[in-house]
Amino acid sequence: MSNNLVPAHGGVLKPLLINNETEREQAIRSASELISVKLSSKEESDLIMLATGAFSPLDGFLGQADYEGVVKEMRLSNGLLWPIPITLAVSESIANSIKTGTRIALIASENDSVLASMLVNEKFSYDKKIEAQNVYCTTDSDHPGVDKIFSQGSIYLGGPVEVFSEGEYPEIYEEFARPAETRALFEEKGWSTVAAFQTRNPIHRSHEYLTKVALEVCDGVLIHPVVGKLKTGDIPADIRMKCYRAILDNYYRPENTVLKVYPMEMRYGGPREAILHAIIRQNFGCSHMIIGRDHAGVGDYYGPFDAQQIFDKLEPGDLHLKPLKLDWTFWCNKCEAVVSTKTCPHGKEEHLMISGTKLRDMLANGERPPVEFSRPEVIDILIDYYSSLE
Amino acid sequence: MSNNLVPAHGGVLKPLLINNETEREQAIRSASELISVKLSSKEESDLIMLATGAFSPLDGFLGQADYEGVVKEMRLSNGLLWPIPITLAVSESIANSIKTGTRIALIASENDSVLASMLVNEKFSYDKKIEAQNVYCTTDSDHPGVDKIFSQGSIYLGGPVEVFSEGEYPEIYEEFARPAETRALFEEKGWSTVAAFQTRNPIHRSHEYLTKVALEVCDGVLIHPVVGKLKTGDIPADIRMKCYRAILDNYYRPENTVLKVYPMEMRYGGPREAILHAIIRQNFGCSHMIIGRDHAGVGDYYGPFDAQQIFDKLEPGDLHLKPLKLDWTFWCNKCEAVVSTKTCPHGKEEHLMISGTKLRDMLANGERPPVEFSRPEVIDILIDYYSSLE
Repeated sequence: MSNNLVPAHGGVLKPLLINNETEREQAIRSASELISVKLSSKEESDLIMLATGAFSPLDGFLGQADYEGVVKEMRLSNGLLWPIPITLAVSESIANSIKTGTRIALIASENDSVLASMLVNEKFSYDKKIEAQNVYCTTDSDHPGVDKIFSQGSIYLGGPVEVFSEGEYPEIYEEFARPAETRALFEEKGWSTVAAFQTRNPIHRSHEYLTKVALEVCDGVLIHPVVGKLKTGDIPADIRMKCYRAILDNYYRPENTVLKVYPMEMRYGGPREAILHAIIRQNFGCSHMIIGRDHAGVGDYYGPFDAQQIFDKLEPGDLHLKPLKLDWTFWCNKCEAVVSTKTCPHGKEEHLMISGTKLRDMLANGERPPVEFSRPEVIDILIDYYSSLE
Repeated sequence: MSNNLVPAHGGVLKPLLINNETEREQAIRSASELISVKLSSKEESDLIMLATGAFSPLDGFLGQADYEGVVKEMRLSNGLLWPIPITLAVSESIANSIKTGTRIALIASENDSVLASMLVNEKFSYDKKIEAQNVYCTTDSDHPGVDKIFSQGSIYLGGPVEVFSEGEYPEIYEEFARPAETRALFEEKGWSTVAAFQTRNPIHRSHEYLTKVALEVCDGVLIHPVVGKLKTGDIPADIRMKCYRAILDNYYRPENTVLKVYPMEMRYGGPREAILHAIIRQNFGCSHMIIGRDHAGVGDYYGPFDAQQIFDKLEPGDLHLKPLKLDWTFWCNKCEAVVSTKTCPHGKEEHLMISGTKLRDMLANGERPPVEFSRPEVIDILIDYYSSLE
């Protein structure tokens, strides 16, 4: 079958999971002898991203030259676009216990599984404030991405990894899929243009509209929720998955819509995270990614369209995936449709807008938002969830 | 101002209207001495298309080499894509009265105005059946495009034209605009991606949806109805213009939606006409054109997506404009939205479909179709129109 999909970032998919059973067992045995380092949940997610090939062409946690290129100029030392450093942080005392040039074992964040081994090529200190400011545009530790930098160890270990396990994700999520698998699926379906929809929320009608605009102009859509750990207050992945499945079953065509998950943790990094999301989606075989209002944003750290504009600053060839920049969307009573700031001429008084806080309050009280806001199938699940919290 | 618009077809806009007042008067005076040829309404429309630059880079009616290249291979003799021949047909006796190498005057179809002069470089006979079959995929004279070939003279005159007048179009339509004007307007608005919407019908909600999908993914939309003579039964341009203005006033944003008209006559040529429409729109400065189901089709002469598929057969560089291929669209009761065959999973029983014939009957009886089918402002105008016919 001819492959019309976009190439992987940097040219080739590089999944770092050891697939051969014998080799893996051998590697796990050898790892039991090694000094071990416990991962944070973010690092564990990143390791699994490396394992699947979603972070291609990285071969492990960044060394110093790559790290500094990424923080300062959004580029690896070979010039390839990369917006957010993928790092492994340890305390000074742990760092002192590890010799450069030796192999260590990487341990899951919430149990004792040995997930991978890593050849520590480099140990280096870094400036937390510079990383925060450059990557997240703020040093405010209320920002969840910044907070993770400030609460981690002060030394980064850099080097290639060999991964033994993708943790519990493949068991928990039947929709867990690696880039090579989504690519094979898209090829089997004969798609060449595929739009990714990144989400960490249930899909309400305004989001459904975004995906359907994308469907009108592409062969297919990949609904691609992040299922790594989210910040407090975000709706947990298992509940969101129920919502996604319900809406896909009732309002999408299975021929052209695919639901798959990926295990990264959100950084809430706005523009730079939008670029990371795009690189990941290109690895998954997507030619387009929906970038809506305040993509991957949190609080007021970013302008509503910063994550769209950053794509305009890239050099030709930096990315094969194209952003599908879409505007703020909502139901309009005069249009009698879900529309956007671009397609609706009417005033705000005609627009059905419900803030996140308001929606949570309504659902917690068992109050149903209008069907123009969200599908009843989704609301049922959310009301159940909020009532279970009480 | 930097120009990010697509280039004109073949590179440069070539409007053939003489703009200089003195030169034009001189040319008109000279033309009064010449042998004159009365144009058909189609030829007159084509002449005005040439005058405005919409048929760039043609410099007049096609000579034999260009004609044959177009009919057989959709290419001018220099290799440039051109799908439907732009021709001037005369009877044998008129042809005999004209010497090759002389200039003739071209007279309006419905009055005696001298619209242009033409240097007759060539006279040649042609095969009507071959033209019909190649261009329209049929020799059935029930096809309105084929009928025009069969009822015209048997000799084509080829040569460059100098046009004195765009006829009555600029007076009748305040929205009459030449390619240089739409380009200036798009540049002033700072657009680089503009989607054209070709139409010969009132805009109902399914068409509105097509234009709004285009708006979501482009900087602006050009609603661009054809106002040349249509086939019997089509709604006349003045009524349609009222409908367009009403819907634009109420459901579109003036910042990103422009209504302009062009004077061509429909050929109902399906796939080849879609290519012609695309070339014209590229001349008008559009980067995209909506190609829906059965674009420019009539009866059952073409498959519903032939006019989309023909674009896949072009060579790279043939066109700078890209087709926005959209599917069949309709209101769905379950989706509670206008959707398409791509975005709706529900059965036909949920879809609000009203055939052209049924709609005419309803409107003629003063019966209003549901608001989900068409905006009330449009229905008011159409009911008025049909009741005036009785």
